[in-house]
Amino acid sequence: MHRASFEDMNCSIARSLEVIGEWWTLLILRDAFLGITRFEEFQERLGIARNILATRLQTLVDHGVLERRCYEEARGRYDYLLTEKGKALWPVLVTIRQWGDQWIAGAGHEPLTMVHTHCGEHTHGVLTCDHCGERLDRRDLRMVPGPGLHDPSMLPNSAPSC
Amino acid sequence: MHRASFEDMNCSIARSLEVIGEWWTLLILRDAFLGITRFEEFQERLGIARNILATRLQTLVDHGVLERRCYEEARGRYDYLLTEKGKALWPVLVTIRQWGDQWIAGAGHEPLTMVHTHCGEHTHGVLTCDHCGERLDRRDLRMVPGPGLHDPSMLPNSAPSC
Repeated sequence: MHRASFEDMNCSIARSLEVIGEWWTLLILRDAFLGITRFEEFQERLGIARNILATRLQTLVDHGVLERRCYEEARGRYDYLLTEKGKALWPVLVTIRQWGDQWIAGAGHEPLTMVHTHCGEHTHGVLTCDHCGERLDRRDLRMVPGPGLHDPSMLPNSAPSC
Repeated sequence: MHRASFEDMNCSIARSLEVIGEWWTLLILRDAFLGITRFEEFQERLGIARNILATRLQTLVDHGVLERRCYEEARGRYDYLLTEKGKALWPVLVTIRQWGDQWIAGAGHEPLTMVHTHCGEHTHGVLTCDHCGERLDRRDLRMVPGPGLHDPSMLPNSAPSC
């Protein structure tokens, strides 16, 4: 399959997908957030071919999403740990998981649920405006040119929302 | 490349990626949210091969994320419109875009920004708890077994967060 690079697109979604959009990568990150750090553990949980796993981990290290830390120098064994850039991806995983829970697994069939230890209750994350604090609704969002826009075709005239 | 199916994994992230995890698919959805509906427009904006675009659109129709609506019966031309299931993906696109803005484009270089028409200000979406209303912090989230968990290995004992 022909695969263009998204890296040069003037779009933060495209450039993010250049990093996290590969098949398997978001599942590697899911497991990293669940506390998995070692090659063998990722491999066993995901059932992924070793060469593909190695390539995906290397890509995430190259992009500063994971960092390697040696835990057994003699055998060259590493832990793969989320960096700050990697940890910042948790809202992406939460929103994907919640969509799958609602629209694929279906209510009452969620494999995992989240507890908010701050209030002690089961929680769903809802997006709210960091300015006024109201819940965001898709229809109340308008995309406008940002300071980094140099390809205006990214934004159709009619752009209604995200 | 070997590609397993994620469909049978007992995980809402994996099952979501079965639908939206293909290379290009999230960019097709990005453009659908920007108001693009027609094959030729997607093709022109994305620079994607026609056969790949056709396959990706068909997959999204098959999964009920897009629906086809005829706009020129004689020539068999269709609009591709987001369904409710498709519209429900906007938080995923918002969180991916925001991550890319912060960690790849960088502050001050965002190609597009969001205005919250409700308050009139530029906005970032922040995840808050739908129970107590506080902003969620990754470290205050704990994954616990849900009603649909039938593969306990999905949840490591140590699971610290999302």
